[in-house]
Amino acid sequence: MNDILERLSRILEARKQADPDDSYVSGLYAKGLDAILKKIGEEAAETLLAAKDGVPGRIVHEVADLWFHTLVLLARQELGPDAVLQELERRFGLSGLEEKAQRRS
Amino acid sequence: MNDILERLSRILEARKQADPDDSYVSGLYAKGLDAILKKIGEEAAETLLAAKDGVPGRIVHEVADLWFHTLVLLARQELGPDAVLQELERRFGLSGLEEKAQRRS
Amino acid sequence: MNDILERLSRILEARKQADPDDSYVSGLYAKGLDAILKKIGEEAAETLLAAKDGVPGRIVHEVADLWFHTLVLLARQELGPDAVLQELERRFGLSGLEEKAQRRS
Amino acid sequence: MNDILERLSRILEARKQADPDDSYVSGLYAKGLDAILKKIGEEAAETLLAAKDGVPGRIVHEVADLWFHTLVLLARQELGPDAVLQELERRFGLSGLEEKAQRRS
Repeated sequence: MNDILERLSRILEARKQADPDDSYVSGLYAKGLDAILKKIGEEAAETLLAAKDGVPGRIVHEVADLWFHTLVLLARQELGPDAVLQELERRFGLSGLEEKAQRRS
Repeated sequence: MNDILERLSRILEARKQADPDDSYVSGLYAKGLDAILKKIGEEAAETLLAAKDGVPGRIVHEVADLWFHTLVLLARQELGPDAVLQELERRFGLSGLEEKAQRRS
Repeated sequence: MNDILERLSRILEARKQADPDDSYVSGLYAKGLDAILKKIGEEAAETLLAAKDGVPGRIVHEVADLWFHTLVLLARQELGPDAVLQELERRFGLSGLEEKAQRRS
Repeated sequence: MNDILERLSRILEARKQADPDDSYVSGLYAKGLDAILKKIGEEAAETLLAAKDGVPGRIVHEVADLWFHTLVLLARQELGPDAVLQELERRFGLSGLEEKAQRRS
């Protein structure tokens, strides 16, 4: 399961060639950056609402939707999940989560 | 790199035992669910702003922040990244991205 | 023009009796709290995107949408714009905006 | 109370001349557009959380914060609440809320 983000990323890349009428993701690309960003805003809001209701299945569902649309954003910008995972890795590699705590304070 | 989410998840779990004054994440747990959700809202907004500016490094940084805080939410709710990856897998396993497109329409 | 919020508030109240199929607002009430809150999340995101593009007409349009849906929320919760205006007034009446600055710091 | 938005707008305008260290709003102007937009994102998220908790006083407080920071945005862009109220008025003047419903569908 570990490579699901990578496989998803490849499919999102391939969707750039698909007909916008045939694929949800191709349709998003065709609508442009703002359409993708609106979805990220929507899914973040839905994650908050699901978390407040505390239903595990809905939280998982909304976080999946949120991650999915950030992956579409990354693909649209010629980036990928590896860059995000490396950034998370880098924060760990240096000094772990405390690095983040320091950065914040 | 593939297991970074899993390793991160284990560290986030361990942080539940740490002193809230010593760890950023332990501090978030101590502040409660709303504090974590506010961070998700903030990082989603910052992702939008970074994407509008189109600077790749900032987009990666903000998406990493956004994923990070959703992982904190998942840990807080006794969930983990595997559940989210399985949900993404499931959508693929059934009929790929088109399944999502159908669900939306 | 000053009483537009008040007049709008009365109309939103009246929409509670309308057929959800006949009125956008009645439809929102019928869908429930989360539907209203998702719209607030969406319109906040669209305000950010419009502001980044810097087109005055779009900013005004999106802020109007955002205020509109917060008014729907207030009406749904048996509140109104007066309570919000009083809260803003109160902050001024005490010691002006500096009160807010102090509260934040 | 009806003119509170107008009075607030004038104060926000005056804050453009104040020392960023002396005034919360002047500090926001000095930090730039993104700082204001992040606050709008944050306050929208806090409005969602307050509404889910259903505590009237917190809802009013968060909506006031949200309106306040949209007013700061409007002032920063040389706009004001009148433009937003006129936009709301215009939608009513034409055909009421149904106009909005049609636009959406």
